[in-house]
Amino acid sequence: MTPKRPGGVWAPAITPFRQDLSPDPERFARHARWLLANGCSGLAAFGTNSEANSLSVEERMALLEFLVAHGISPAALMPGTGCCALTDSVRLTAHAVGLGCAGVLMLPPFYYKGVSDEGLFRSFSEVIERVGDRRLRLYLYHIPPVAQVPISVALIERLLKRYPQTVAGLKDSSGDWNNTKSVLDAFANTGFDVFAGSEVFLLSNMRHGGAGSISATANVNPAAIHRVFENWREPDADRMQEQITATRAVLQKYPMIPALKAIVARGYADPEWATVRPPLVELTTGQRVSLAAELDSHGFTLMA
Amino acid sequence: MTPKRPGGVWAPAITPFRQDLSPDPERFARHARWLLANGCSGLAAFGTNSEANSLSVEERMALLEFLVAHGISPAALMPGTGCCALTDSVRLTAHAVGLGCAGVLMLPPFYYKGVSDEGLFRSFSEVIERVGDRRLRLYLYHIPPVAQVPISVALIERLLKRYPQTVAGLKDSSGDWNNTKSVLDAFANTGFDVFAGSEVFLLSNMRHGGAGSISATANVNPAAIHRVFENWREPDADRMQEQITATRAVLQKYPMIPALKAIVARGYADPEWATVRPPLVELTTGQRVSLAAELDSHGFTLMA
Repeated sequence: MTPKRPGGVWAPAITPFRQDLSPDPERFARHARWLLANGCSGLAAFGTNSEANSLSVEERMALLEFLVAHGISPAALMPGTGCCALTDSVRLTAHAVGLGCAGVLMLPPFYYKGVSDEGLFRSFSEVIERVGDRRLRLYLYHIPPVAQVPISVALIERLLKRYPQTVAGLKDSSGDWNNTKSVLDAFANTGFDVFAGSEVFLLSNMRHGGAGSISATANVNPAAIHRVFENWREPDADRMQEQITATRAVLQKYPMIPALKAIVARGYADPEWATVRPPLVELTTGQRVSLAAELDSHGFTLMA
Repeated sequence: MTPKRPGGVWAPAITPFRQDLSPDPERFARHARWLLANGCSGLAAFGTNSEANSLSVEERMALLEFLVAHGISPAALMPGTGCCALTDSVRLTAHAVGLGCAGVLMLPPFYYKGVSDEGLFRSFSEVIERVGDRRLRLYLYHIPPVAQVPISVALIERLLKRYPQTVAGLKDSSGDWNNTKSVLDAFANTGFDVFAGSEVFLLSNMRHGGAGSISATANVNPAAIHRVFENWREPDADRMQEQITATRAVLQKYPMIPALKAIVARGYADPEWATVRPPLVELTTGQRVSLAAELDSHGFTLMA
């Protein structure tokens, strides 16, 4: 029996920090449960919006173990495991596979810029070979605005050819629908699953054979995003899509991660949730008030 | 008594890997000794050219301990300790200070782009406070072409004001002399030490009050670079500078790190030295041959 492949709305779950900037596993598990109960099919923990790269390898592993030990099914977990250092990526990936996670979402090594596809192929290949576990399902993470190291169609082709059972899909956070479309076209009907990195493209992605979305705002608006996923074949899907697109437009006026944390802090009536690790900075009081007012004025009820 | 501050030519020592991509401490110590015997005042180990970000925290600490245990004076060491994760930077920095290193060279956290000076200030400040050791001498590492996260004059001012005993200098790898000049001017006579990130600017840097250079090519051309440093007040300094600038111009036609490793492999007659970790790729045979031929045709004898 082939295991069910991840699809639908996955949240790059934000990571809570205490005031002393230590990660808080209790709050993390609580938010994970809330996301899964409110429309998320799974959690792409330790993504960009999770401040994953602001965490050490040990901190990431401890948080992941805590989730699994506290009732989050590994089948609903696709942790980020791509680091600059090969040895770190191998360690995190092996750990996630060992816990039985549905997949891993892997950034390319992102310190050196202008690296070749050959170098990136070797990076992913070394991780796959060293982990050496048939259970590994690897999702490539294309986010050039942040990582500055893109994942090309040619690289995907080469990886898929070499590791057809392992290389399972891509999250496209380029913000460029044309890129998502070209990946969908290139790998149509191959079983390679494309997730939109923004829910703005969720409906288009589904209409072109995509698997769902993994996007920041799923942290605060999962139910509405899930409705688009669930109803994408229905006539009123466009209207639903317009609504989530409009919500995102408000959020995008603010620094995304601090904004998500401010909304979650308000939703849980738990101010410590607003804490971010440097180099990020929490919203100012002015930003927080104006964000809340703007969401209210549109009637956008988040964390509901 | 004030300890002697680092100055002169420091090498961002390249890191040797065995064929299985594991770091090789023996070769590392050998190259370190060669550099110190051939014109380098010290080693800025674990810099960009050291593939430091391709190493785990544990790998970096083990290599550094090996150097110190095998006769490299900590007074000649300024390891890179800036990571994306606050906790990693704190751990590496505390470790380096504990070993008695002359200083640390600290990248800003480089995953998130477009972060504020406030966020960067908090990053450096948290590291300094958490390490909490008066012996810490912190050199900021400005390398926007790679890190994509710059260190502004305003940020330096704020850090210096808050931590005048700790914030000791900057390595400027912007490749932009105007930027180096503006930092030199802003902190003239304050004791803040500016290292040129390329030896192309070494003479200019010395003439404007700089402390020396920390540059890739010191791995293979330390004696000639040191001559410029030693003779910068002499009439023939310009001629010496022209020579090292011309040598660098040849090297810059090739991917720098693989080129350095190819030259070192040739110099030590030790082919395994050419190994790089992904995402980097070693020179092709063609590149290696052409680089050697080009250096020979100019009469540039490296590793001599």
